[in-house]
Amino acid sequence: MQKLTVVKIGGNIIDDKERLADFLLSFSRLQGNKILIHGGGKVATEMGTKLGIKANYHNGRRITDKETLELVTMVYGGLINKTIVAQLQSIGANAIGLTGADGKIMSAQKRPVKNIDYGFVGDMNKDSINTGFLNSLLNTGALPVIAPLTYNEGTLLNTNADNIANEIAKAMSAIMEVQLVFCFEQKGVLLDIQDPASLIKQINKQDFEDLKAKQVITDGMIPKLENAFEAINSGVKNVKIGQAEELEELVNGTKGTTIS
Amino acid sequence: MQKLTVVKIGGNIIDDKERLADFLLSFSRLQGNKILIHGGGKVATEMGTKLGIKANYHNGRRITDKETLELVTMVYGGLINKTIVAQLQSIGANAIGLTGADGKIMSAQKRPVKNIDYGFVGDMNKDSINTGFLNSLLNTGALPVIAPLTYNEGTLLNTNADNIANEIAKAMSAIMEVQLVFCFEQKGVLLDIQDPASLIKQINKQDFEDLKAKQVITDGMIPKLENAFEAINSGVKNVKIGQAEELEELVNGTKGTTIS
Repeated sequence: MQKLTVVKIGGNIIDDKERLADFLLSFSRLQGNKILIHGGGKVATEMGTKLGIKANYHNGRRITDKETLELVTMVYGGLINKTIVAQLQSIGANAIGLTGADGKIMSAQKRPVKNIDYGFVGDMNKDSINTGFLNSLLNTGALPVIAPLTYNEGTLLNTNADNIANEIAKAMSAIMEVQLVFCFEQKGVLLDIQDPASLIKQINKQDFEDLKAKQVITDGMIPKLENAFEAINSGVKNVKIGQAEELEELVNGTKGTTIS
Repeated sequence: MQKLTVVKIGGNIIDDKERLADFLLSFSRLQGNKILIHGGGKVATEMGTKLGIKANYHNGRRITDKETLELVTMVYGGLINKTIVAQLQSIGANAIGLTGADGKIMSAQKRPVKNIDYGFVGDMNKDSINTGFLNSLLNTGALPVIAPLTYNEGTLLNTNADNIANEIAKAMSAIMEVQLVFCFEQKGVLLDIQDPASLIKQINKQDFEDLKAKQVITDGMIPKLENAFEAINSGVKNVKIGQAEELEELVNGTKGTTIS
């Protein structure tokens, strides 16, 4: 079975040109098939401010009205995605930038309006990943670079990049041996968030439940790990969490947290 | 030999949502392999005005400083390109949006600075078209939708969409029977620009030289036709010029001007 590494990077690294360049170089050097999923970064908010589009958040998710959808289509699908693609090409990696609409690689449902209307925010449709098309791109030697925009009935939808990475990794596990890597601010899952030396190198479901019960693992780390265990249960070989600067070591398992 | 239709649409139709929707429906119904190349439209200038980026033109070509490159990357590569892709997907056409950087499908040279520094404006590199990759996309049933942005050494370059269409049509003629269609404001090449009934249905190089000498064909039509004849000489089977509203008839030869 061919191997595939699915890597998700967040806004913090996208906003820092030098760190992004270093990361892309490490990423381009990873062996075998690769897919990169990128988040948004501050540039959409900055650009929105200049355009007079106010950022409204509810529970950490941006409310995406029509103007904001145009903004994120420009910034995520245009500026960030194409800048990453051009940089990867300059170091010899044959990147191709995609949203969910391109080749209909993934679709989502517009989030139902309950108390809050999130607007053009999409929740991934499970089983919507066009694995055949992604596979045919990988077979040409191309390296898909995916923006956090999914597709539904003629429109794009603003979608969480972690969820996209999860669904792509799970779906591709049917045809490849998949490793899923989440790059974020911390060196991995920490026992003490103030102390990088308290890194948990390996964590299984039982450890996680224990640490959650003791409130050692809290807040945003809980859904991240729950998603990771779900990915493992759905056929992903392993999930790594750590810093973008340590991508190579994350992949070879010498740094960061390995979820198994 | 497989057939390929390469269609270029300009800004006038991109700026008009209804006309664009009608055009995309006709385009999606064309038989066989298809590639769409789109121009810019007014939205980049409007968005630029909001962002405080002034549009500077010299001889009809936009001077593209760093800020303007970011603007056109967002608008051409993001907003316009992905909106067209999503609309095509909604009518069953498996579109995939591309710039020159994606799959390194085409590259250009930054225009040399003489009296004027055009900034990040690129002139197409002849023989830079990645026909193998475009062919492999077409073989998956995908429909490439190409923004007027080429690639050179890690950066995108703002590039004339007519020239992109020409170079793609010429290069693809090595492996397919190519028809090249330019959609613009007029019904085709007219003897009297005020009178749509004065349409020239067929024009060859000799006719063109005669009409140019008599100053019946002038201004912007001269480079358009010169490019068309160059395309024919480089293996493109035929070139059509006419209105987007008459795409089907342009392709079957019942309307517009056929260059042969």
